[in-house]
Amino acid sequence: MNPGDRVRVERGDSVYEGVLMPSTTAEEVVVKLDGGYNVGIDREGSDVTVFESDVYEVGGAGGEEATSEVAFDEDLPTIALISTGGTIASTVDYRTGAVTAQFTAEDVLRAVPDLAGRANYRGRVVANILSENMTPDVWRELAEAVYEEIEAGADGVVVMHGTDTMQYTASALAFVLDTPVPIVFTGSQRSADRPSSDNVMNAVCSVEAAKADCAEVLVCMHATESDDRCALHRGTRVRKNHTSRRDAFETVGNEPLGHVDYGTEAVTFDREYAPRGGVELAIAPDLETEVELLKFTPGMDEALLDCCAGKAGLVIEGTGLGHVHTDLIPEIESMIDDGTVVVMTSGCLAGRVCDRVYDTGRDLIAAGVVEGEDMLPGTAKVKLMWALANAEAVEETMRTPIAGELTERSVPWT
Amino acid sequence: MNPGDRVRVERGDSVYEGVLMPSTTAEEVVVKLDGGYNVGIDREGSDVTVFESDVYEVGGAGGEEATSEVAFDEDLPTIALISTGGTIASTVDYRTGAVTAQFTAEDVLRAVPDLAGRANYRGRVVANILSENMTPDVWRELAEAVYEEIEAGADGVVVMHGTDTMQYTASALAFVLDTPVPIVFTGSQRSADRPSSDNVMNAVCSVEAAKADCAEVLVCMHATESDDRCALHRGTRVRKNHTSRRDAFETVGNEPLGHVDYGTEAVTFDREYAPRGGVELAIAPDLETEVELLKFTPGMDEALLDCCAGKAGLVIEGTGLGHVHTDLIPEIESMIDDGTVVVMTSGCLAGRVCDRVYDTGRDLIAAGVVEGEDMLPGTAKVKLMWALANAEAVEETMRTPIAGELTERSVPWT
Repeated sequence: MNPGDRVRVERGDSVYEGVLMPSTTAEEVVVKLDGGYNVGIDREGSDVTVFESDVYEVGGAGGEEATSEVAFDEDLPTIALISTGGTIASTVDYRTGAVTAQFTAEDVLRAVPDLAGRANYRGRVVANILSENMTPDVWRELAEAVYEEIEAGADGVVVMHGTDTMQYTASALAFVLDTPVPIVFTGSQRSADRPSSDNVMNAVCSVEAAKADCAEVLVCMHATESDDRCALHRGTRVRKNHTSRRDAFETVGNEPLGHVDYGTEAVTFDREYAPRGGVELAIAPDLETEVELLKFTPGMDEALLDCCAGKAGLVIEGTGLGHVHTDLIPEIESMIDDGTVVVMTSGCLAGRVCDRVYDTGRDLIAAGVVEGEDMLPGTAKVKLMWALANAEAVEETMRTPIAGELTERSVPWT
Repeated sequence: MNPGDRVRVERGDSVYEGVLMPSTTAEEVVVKLDGGYNVGIDREGSDVTVFESDVYEVGGAGGEEATSEVAFDEDLPTIALISTGGTIASTVDYRTGAVTAQFTAEDVLRAVPDLAGRANYRGRVVANILSENMTPDVWRELAEAVYEEIEAGADGVVVMHGTDTMQYTASALAFVLDTPVPIVFTGSQRSADRPSSDNVMNAVCSVEAAKADCAEVLVCMHATESDDRCALHRGTRVRKNHTSRRDAFETVGNEPLGHVDYGTEAVTFDREYAPRGGVELAIAPDLETEVELLKFTPGMDEALLDCCAGKAGLVIEGTGLGHVHTDLIPEIESMIDDGTVVVMTSGCLAGRVCDRVYDTGRDLIAAGVVEGEDMLPGTAKVKLMWALANAEAVEETMRTPIAGELTERSVPWT
């Protein structure tokens, strides 16, 4: 049996039918169910029947170029579609079986016919994982793939990604890459087999956004519960704010950067953005992975801090303006003295940290804590990973806007 | 020198003037500045001058009854005002010097004259701390104080509390107490010396809410950036969602329970609530403090989980529908096998956890993780502390609404 085969797996009382997927471990069989979800099944004790061999056309693997029979239209821009997995990727994958390293324009158009006539497409698979399994290593691979696609002439990039950690991956690319073209993340909150699926509209709007003028890392997802328009969020300022709604993604503390109207296909921007071609393509892919994020809540055991001692960096999600229980400050100071960079953010999520108003904050600053300004805690973690590996003055870099992740104080705080 | 004295403290280049406060440690002098903030100053190296002795009237300490000269009006309800500290308490404290265990109706009315004629007041100080320093021990003391006041005949209770951790303390009281009268938390985002201070309106609206019909634990704070009305949030569903705005508090995933109009003083409820007198007063103040909350972010070190092994409980703030990296599941399973109750919530904050859709979630359920339904992560932590100390079936209790903290699924998930 081979990836792409249609199989039935029986194990105990359970029966799974679908397309066999490549598996990263020898211990399990991975099957993409017809609903679009992947299931991993213990190989031990499983009975696998191949009842239709290789029914799906599979794109070329590894470095091998997948060949397309869709004619190249020189009047259209070229968009690179990069798949990392998640519900939206299953739209493409389970219909086309394109689970290997590349897929063709035919695969894309067969999966989402509405994409036809909008661009020339180059397809590429960087990973095929649910986004809770994303790691800084995959962020790097993805950044390098995006870099290569732009270098090869892509006029824009669409990254298909699971929604769970999309905001972290988008932030990582925003710090790692200087991009002269749009890099648009999109995903799906409802799989293709559900009537309410958001995958087609999100894919179409993302391609339109990737053709637009804004050369930033964006997240493009439903703006409302209707199929009327997608919002374009800056990758470093966005959060998934609902577990299941299609309009789960929101720009924190501001309006979205822009929108794509699904009816007219118009892309509009309501705020200032970095225009296409404004910077040269560049990549700084190193990330320091010894960075943690701790959320302070009342009654927190100091042992959690101790556990982060010796790390390169720690982001604290504190309370209010950026506080923790006073009793924790000596341990924080000791970590900083030993070389850990500690950045304070707020569990309020919106608003600016200011540790100069109350005693606790002043004590934290005296201990050497870096104020995270108005950065989201998760974005601050990603930025700290990047700054520790790339910046000479890490603390100053953390307080300076690099990719729209923070706004500078309009009035210096004295 | 004694608490209540007006002092000047000089230390190095710094000079602090204000009212001397009681200090919990011998190492520092605590001064309430005229702006309302407390500063703790190292006693060592400090030069303290008392330049006006005991200018403020100080209420009776300890169990001694503070006597009031404001006539009791039998046509008005009696409201217990309980102070725990924070910016709003500084309104009362720094003007009245009422830093000991009780304060009088005169103290209250001198601090906020607008409260006159609305109720008979009983004042009580449970703590005088910034709310980042709140602990489960203080929650218990506060719950017992509230219990005593209601038992003694209070028709409603207003708790003045720092805003940083108000949502946790309000949740704790919601689980610990069965209350036949309203318990209204309020605070202040801007201190009394600032023109934009929200303290008077919040205090007035809280007293009106404490006289109303809704016998729940509520948070009463500015509903908008204007001085037009306060929102009444259910304590278990509220979050401080902005570091500094006056309307920082929001009910997550729903509208507030009600509002207090500042102009007309009308209290209105827009959703179903527990009415006054519906339950008998009762208290279950035990809390299991060996409970942690961990926020999962990509790249999280498994060592943070190991650090929670052996605890009674762990709440995970996962991604999306309630996920963590698959590699962490064996450690979670091992903790559960060793007796830790692990509850999954979502960093999305709004929406319901559902670990039955994707592989990762199913594996988490198989490992014994309890789905936290649509509970806020912080509320889930407080509830787990309470459930572990009071409930026989902890897992079932976590999935059952106790104090409005979760809504049951309208359709059973199959």
